[in-house]
Amino acid sequence: MEEKKNRPKKPHRPIVKPSRTGADKRNEKRVLIKPRKENGAEKIRRNERNNKPINKKHGIKPLKVIFLGGVGEIGKNMTAIECGDDIIVIDAGAIFPTDETPGFDLIVPDVTYLVENAKKVRGLILTHGHEDHIGGVPYLLKELKIPVAGTKLTLALVDNKLREHRINDSKQITLTPGQTVQMGCFKIRPVNVNHSIAGSLAFAIETPHGTIFHSGDFKIDLTPVAGEPIDLKTISDIGSAGVLLYMGESTNIERAGFTMSETVVGNTLDRLFEENTGRRIIVATFASNVHRLQQIIDLAVKHKRKVALSGRSMHNVLEAAEKIGEIKIPEGALTDISKIKNMRDSEIVVVSTGSQGEPMSALTRMANGENSQITVGKNDTVIISATPIPGNEKLVYRVINNLYRLGAEVVYESLENIHVSGHACREEHKIMHRLLKPKYFIPVHGEFRHLKKHFQLAASLGMPENKMYIPEIGNCIEVSQNGLKRVESVQAGSRLIDGEGIEDENQSIVIEDRRQLSEEGLFIVSIAVSNGEVVGEPAVTARGFVFDFHRDYNKEIREVILRAIEGYDLSHGTVDELKKQIRRNLRNYLMKKTKQSPMIVPVVVEV
Amino acid sequence: MEEKKNRPKKPHRPIVKPSRTGADKRNEKRVLIKPRKENGAEKIRRNERNNKPINKKHGIKPLKVIFLGGVGEIGKNMTAIECGDDIIVIDAGAIFPTDETPGFDLIVPDVTYLVENAKKVRGLILTHGHEDHIGGVPYLLKELKIPVAGTKLTLALVDNKLREHRINDSKQITLTPGQTVQMGCFKIRPVNVNHSIAGSLAFAIETPHGTIFHSGDFKIDLTPVAGEPIDLKTISDIGSAGVLLYMGESTNIERAGFTMSETVVGNTLDRLFEENTGRRIIVATFASNVHRLQQIIDLAVKHKRKVALSGRSMHNVLEAAEKIGEIKIPEGALTDISKIKNMRDSEIVVVSTGSQGEPMSALTRMANGENSQITVGKNDTVIISATPIPGNEKLVYRVINNLYRLGAEVVYESLENIHVSGHACREEHKIMHRLLKPKYFIPVHGEFRHLKKHFQLAASLGMPENKMYIPEIGNCIEVSQNGLKRVESVQAGSRLIDGEGIEDENQSIVIEDRRQLSEEGLFIVSIAVSNGEVVGEPAVTARGFVFDFHRDYNKEIREVILRAIEGYDLSHGTVDELKKQIRRNLRNYLMKKTKQSPMIVPVVVEV
Repeated sequence: MEEKKNRPKKPHRPIVKPSRTGADKRNEKRVLIKPRKENGAEKIRRNERNNKPINKKHGIKPLKVIFLGGVGEIGKNMTAIECGDDIIVIDAGAIFPTDETPGFDLIVPDVTYLVENAKKVRGLILTHGHEDHIGGVPYLLKELKIPVAGTKLTLALVDNKLREHRINDSKQITLTPGQTVQMGCFKIRPVNVNHSIAGSLAFAIETPHGTIFHSGDFKIDLTPVAGEPIDLKTISDIGSAGVLLYMGESTNIERAGFTMSETVVGNTLDRLFEENTGRRIIVATFASNVHRLQQIIDLAVKHKRKVALSGRSMHNVLEAAEKIGEIKIPEGALTDISKIKNMRDSEIVVVSTGSQGEPMSALTRMANGENSQITVGKNDTVIISATPIPGNEKLVYRVINNLYRLGAEVVYESLENIHVSGHACREEHKIMHRLLKPKYFIPVHGEFRHLKKHFQLAASLGMPENKMYIPEIGNCIEVSQNGLKRVESVQAGSRLIDGEGIEDENQSIVIEDRRQLSEEGLFIVSIAVSNGEVVGEPAVTARGFVFDFHRDYNKEIREVILRAIEGYDLSHGTVDELKKQIRRNLRNYLMKKTKQSPMIVPVVVEV
Repeated sequence: MEEKKNRPKKPHRPIVKPSRTGADKRNEKRVLIKPRKENGAEKIRRNERNNKPINKKHGIKPLKVIFLGGVGEIGKNMTAIECGDDIIVIDAGAIFPTDETPGFDLIVPDVTYLVENAKKVRGLILTHGHEDHIGGVPYLLKELKIPVAGTKLTLALVDNKLREHRINDSKQITLTPGQTVQMGCFKIRPVNVNHSIAGSLAFAIETPHGTIFHSGDFKIDLTPVAGEPIDLKTISDIGSAGVLLYMGESTNIERAGFTMSETVVGNTLDRLFEENTGRRIIVATFASNVHRLQQIIDLAVKHKRKVALSGRSMHNVLEAAEKIGEIKIPEGALTDISKIKNMRDSEIVVVSTGSQGEPMSALTRMANGENSQITVGKNDTVIISATPIPGNEKLVYRVINNLYRLGAEVVYESLENIHVSGHACREEHKIMHRLLKPKYFIPVHGEFRHLKKHFQLAASLGMPENKMYIPEIGNCIEVSQNGLKRVESVQAGSRLIDGEGIEDENQSIVIEDRRQLSEEGLFIVSIAVSNGEVVGEPAVTARGFVFDFHRDYNKEIREVILRAIEGYDLSHGTVDELKKQIRRNLRNYLMKKTKQSPMIVPVVVEV
């Protein structure tokens, strides 16, 4: 992976080669690197562990990229960039638990490395306001008091979170495309990109070693509903000036072609509004997709309907977006959801949360007949303007099934063009690579297969394989003009949030316990011990365990336990050993008789 | 839903109308129905509950269709058809558990209704050998000794199951397309259809009231790899003779167009074999898709490779299929998997199970580096010739990610045409409806949304809505020339198999217990009671519960429990009331302090 050729010069400063000697070249290197020294601390520093000079060849500190989340997985994106005494963090995302982490509320990155290097961390820069980019912000800020930078909408959404967590003292920096921000030795230039939420950014980060470009989540929308198209001109200029490393998102890398423009959705919705005159229309979509909301509101005005909002986050986002001017609501376009009972169906559009089938969302409650404000019936057309995020399919289809059962018409197929993705497809990625012409490339934001496909796409555009790397969580990559070099990994992984509790995934016996309990059930064996002797009868309680109806186990189980107790001399052994004996005997018996292996918990009460 | 018009005549017996009186028409009805009486018992019978004559108008017993599985869900298909003293059952499927039924092995239909009417059940007829059609056979046969009818391959696959369950005495009837079988008053005519398994059938069932046509699972493949194309001629003839009721599968009803022929897969595989000369090829596919296996074997011969099988079911199915002539293996085409170590990569094709990412399958073990016979590396091309069944996506993608990590190339996109569905798309369904021209239609095999879409497709072809019905599990529909009529539902639902245990889903506290244990964890509180008094110290054990690291709960929890015990007078109350008191106090405390609600199990040991 380490590049062999030793060419520290920047590509936009062509050097006439033939007339120079080796000594000249070495001098040249120093000259070339000199201007960079102005940005950082200058002295040669020594590694604290082995006392060796750090990067003595260049005299500047090495540049490291540290992957704390969002690689090898989709969700909880977090990347740290470190140079000398400065660290900046790009995004602090969260991911929702799956059936492998049952019962948890949220999963966020393990930020031990940042906490251990707290003094170096200059700030958190956010690409946009989706959960997988900002969901971990409150948990990070509880451990590190650092400035948070993002666009107006991103910060407004972060504010909602911080209020919930009662964090009032965060320092915030509003980012505007084109206006650079300095954090330590890093000069950050936000670049406007298109995505399924307004106020999305890529970052060009000038470091002492060269420019790192991070795409954030992006698509190329040349006819966006509001705001500007992705700033291809600036991206092209950055590419011309020289990009050391490109980190590009990979979510839709498996899809050929070009993602459709958001305006396509408006055209489809317009047609559906026309086809459903006389019926009530309910549109479920992501609250954060403010341009989608804008289109629905504009269409409602056009078709003489009033918009009623359903779902808490729909109110929150619309309020935040309107306040900062990201959405424009014409006078009288909205009505309160409580008033629609007295209106004709043909006069109403309900815009609702729950497009992912979330169990407590407005749409799911409608589908279950449990929404006190909206009773769905035969004169309703429900448009689900979203596609299920992988893993949510069952929830979404359950909602659709139940809406159909209530007699409603449901429009949900991707065929209908009622949703477009917010992520670039393969041709868009090719454009980005061609414009940036990076020296090195690291694919991010995706499972391994996505990163691999993005790696292969870059290779097909001419990028040599030894100038790319597929990262995993915890990887630390040293980047210089001389190459990519993997150095020692840092502590990283998942932190599982459950109520007020936090669990480290790697060390979690809770997950393993929960898995066993949910799959196999539980036997509790309680015995009383007095003066080193078992007294009374053992009490056995089973939960979550399926018995064969044809068999009476009680007597046999009692005997198995009594045999374990009788064969044991407490005056010579410990209570823990007795517990083990009981567990072993009962486990063997249950496996033999029932082919099941429940958790067995022996409890001893000292009397 | 009940049809208003009273026209009992069969459509293929045209009657000249104008010259007849009302009385003539009534007589005509009797004449028309007379021949039917020969099939069943003749006397007017009375309902056992209300003593009213049964269907006195026609003098023949009502025909009922009873939905025991596969409607409102995908999987565990089972439909019973009843007329008088005769019941036949179409399919006895199973479905695999989901995260809502954690830890169970299999889910099969609740067959209480059949067991209660055991004397009437004349036989089980199987459309084909997939799990969702035969997986429940052993569980049905354990309760009902009835003949089982299916094609050779279907019965061979059933035999594998029955051997596992040590059922040796089943009576089996081999079905051949065109050869009718009589079961009670039902004359069953098997019709050849195409599907992703060989030996698939639809059934035309002649009843005293007219013909019921059940599609089974089907597609229209006009260029099948082996065997015959779907018998459109016979289906057309059956339609011309008059179909009372059509029950049609709905799996792919959301897909436009026409499912591609199985031969398309062969063309793609041929190209991939050519492109991967010099590399080892591993193909993962469904063992039951014997025509896919045939294509791979033929291509291996063509490209001078030997086929090695990996995975138990691959061996089982190939053996069964070869024995009955469903697959033809050229001399020397196979090699034992143990021998491939000594062969060149370019000489090998491994055909493996695990295309759904099943955790214990051959492919998953390869991806995890745990397959003792195959070590996957950089010179391997793995072709996953299947698409993930909804719900299996995560497992499949985990396997793909891990294969990539091992350096293999993986071919899996649907873009690649390396898999085609076995189910009809919308245009194929239209052909079936046009050929059958049924009087009534009931969509089957699908979630509610699929059934609804199939209902709408039939409506778009001219079928009046009151001649159709969307069934749910347990529904019983009386079918006559006068209409569809929903009568009282029967007991039906899911039985969950876990080891040797069986659980009824509706009454299951096990599922609820497992859910709570897996999501919230567990607290066990043990106390000892002697002569109506609590003695010793309470013992508290927590499992699967996440504590806040910053807090020491032990002391507080002990106090909460002691307060519950102290405030209680055992001489006046019962031990159960004391348990409730402990549970209530601890639940309130934990909810307040941790926002979590674990299962609390108080255990009392009497000493």
